[in-house]
Amino acid sequence: MKPAVAAENLVNTNAFTVQDVINLVLKEGALTPISNTVDTIKSGHAGQQVTGIVTTMFPTIAVIEEAVKRNANFIIAHEPSFYNHRDEVNLVKNNTVLEKKIQLLEKHQIAIWRFHDYCHSINPDIISYGVAKKAGWLSYYKAKSTVLTIPKVSLKQLVQHLKTSLGISNLRIIGDPEQMCERVALLPGAAGGQYQINIASSEKPDVLIAGEVSEWETAEYIRDSRLLGGNMALIILGHAVSEEPGMEWFAEWLQPKLPAVKITHVASGNPFTWM
Amino acid sequence: MKPAVAAENLVNTNAFTVQDVINLVLKEGALTPISNTVDTIKSGHAGQQVTGIVTTMFPTIAVIEEAVKRNANFIIAHEPSFYNHRDEVNLVKNNTVLEKKIQLLEKHQIAIWRFHDYCHSINPDIISYGVAKKAGWLSYYKAKSTVLTIPKVSLKQLVQHLKTSLGISNLRIIGDPEQMCERVALLPGAAGGQYQINIASSEKPDVLIAGEVSEWETAEYIRDSRLLGGNMALIILGHAVSEEPGMEWFAEWLQPKLPAVKITHVASGNPFTWM
Repeated sequence: MKPAVAAENLVNTNAFTVQDVINLVLKEGALTPISNTVDTIKSGHAGQQVTGIVTTMFPTIAVIEEAVKRNANFIIAHEPSFYNHRDEVNLVKNNTVLEKKIQLLEKHQIAIWRFHDYCHSINPDIISYGVAKKAGWLSYYKAKSTVLTIPKVSLKQLVQHLKTSLGISNLRIIGDPEQMCERVALLPGAAGGQYQINIASSEKPDVLIAGEVSEWETAEYIRDSRLLGGNMALIILGHAVSEEPGMEWFAEWLQPKLPAVKITHVASGNPFTWM
Repeated sequence: MKPAVAAENLVNTNAFTVQDVINLVLKEGALTPISNTVDTIKSGHAGQQVTGIVTTMFPTIAVIEEAVKRNANFIIAHEPSFYNHRDEVNLVKNNTVLEKKIQLLEKHQIAIWRFHDYCHSINPDIISYGVAKKAGWLSYYKAKSTVLTIPKVSLKQLVQHLKTSLGISNLRIIGDPEQMCERVALLPGAAGGQYQINIASSEKPDVLIAGEVSEWETAEYIRDSRLLGGNMALIILGHAVSEEPGMEWFAEWLQPKLPAVKITHVASGNPFTWM
């Protein structure tokens, strides 16, 4: 394995390893190490020379195949590779889907690094900034704040705006489509019930925009809140599509810092058909 | 508090306490105690005299109000009261929604018992039996098996059947609406990614019918499985609506065992508007 080299010595050479890229992201993101992070190398190895980088939400089979087509052997993915948060490969016995995925990754010598905890630790948060950018909300966006005050619109109009700007075909809400929304809590991804309810409870936004919720947590909280006379609404975008603009923005963020390596975004996309 | 009395001595008196009813369920269900169960009394107290029983999925504000109207002061709910699995009331500080819910419960002296772990431990599982019953699948249902072999239908027809029989307006799938399905894994509720993927991996059904999934777990597993050439489909019914027939069946199950107390089911229902 190639010894670690300071990132600043590398930007003018073509010989970047996976670890060099990770080091560069940590340095440029002004990140301090996170203990017990899920952001580990899931496939390939640290010393592997990088031919190109693909950023994505989920490193699906389709994303891997597209990376191969683009001659990019390094996928930086926000979410797990192997269907559980810690990417434990033995959680389910005889998991042939997982085995075939590993075989495909090995065949094409694809490295995967998960970029989740660090991604959310960059200031501003790569994901929420990317989503705000794609939604045309950067002028309302404040780093380290989940709440944006946007020009007042109906919930129905807000839903339409999110569908159009983020490229989302279907979503779920709890609320009255005609109610007006101005203070928006933007929580892409699956931040967890405790966090989502805490933001709802402390920030009292007009609407909470989440990627994914546990139905027995945030959804029931919002339902009861409204039954008790409250007016807070909930929009559930879907996990992948809610954070994808963040990983798209990450490619833009990283490219000028690493001009020698081609960095593109491949959307893993919405997995569902709505019926 | 009234001393505990053996259930068999009580079926001919009107003086049932919450604890008497719980004891009766445990006895009639041939249940052995589960350590560290979430099935605890969430509101009211064990010695409280029961005026009537309502069964439901989520003890929402609307369900509580309906119970009051029905003069039923005991709600047996499958899912949490306070927006987290263990019903911790201090998980989110200054949670006024939770505080108002507790005030409402106290005002009307409503007892709530969660009936989750025990409910799934009865043989046959109250929930999956109730869902199979409502779907008209009892002749294909086997206790302790998650897989039913039903007459072959297309995924589209299966979706339509589930919508009609279970009263579901919208749902999400991963799969080809035209593919044929015969072996069906029935997993209402949110059984968790490890369990769902284990069933998918070991049973290899044509379709997995889940109540709720974590999108980074089961949904991505099914998506990759199909991208690798597999044909397994996924139907996501929604958590509340997927298990509601189980709690409806539980009211039927319990009523003849406790004829002196009126037991009715109140559906907490789908919380979402689909847009």
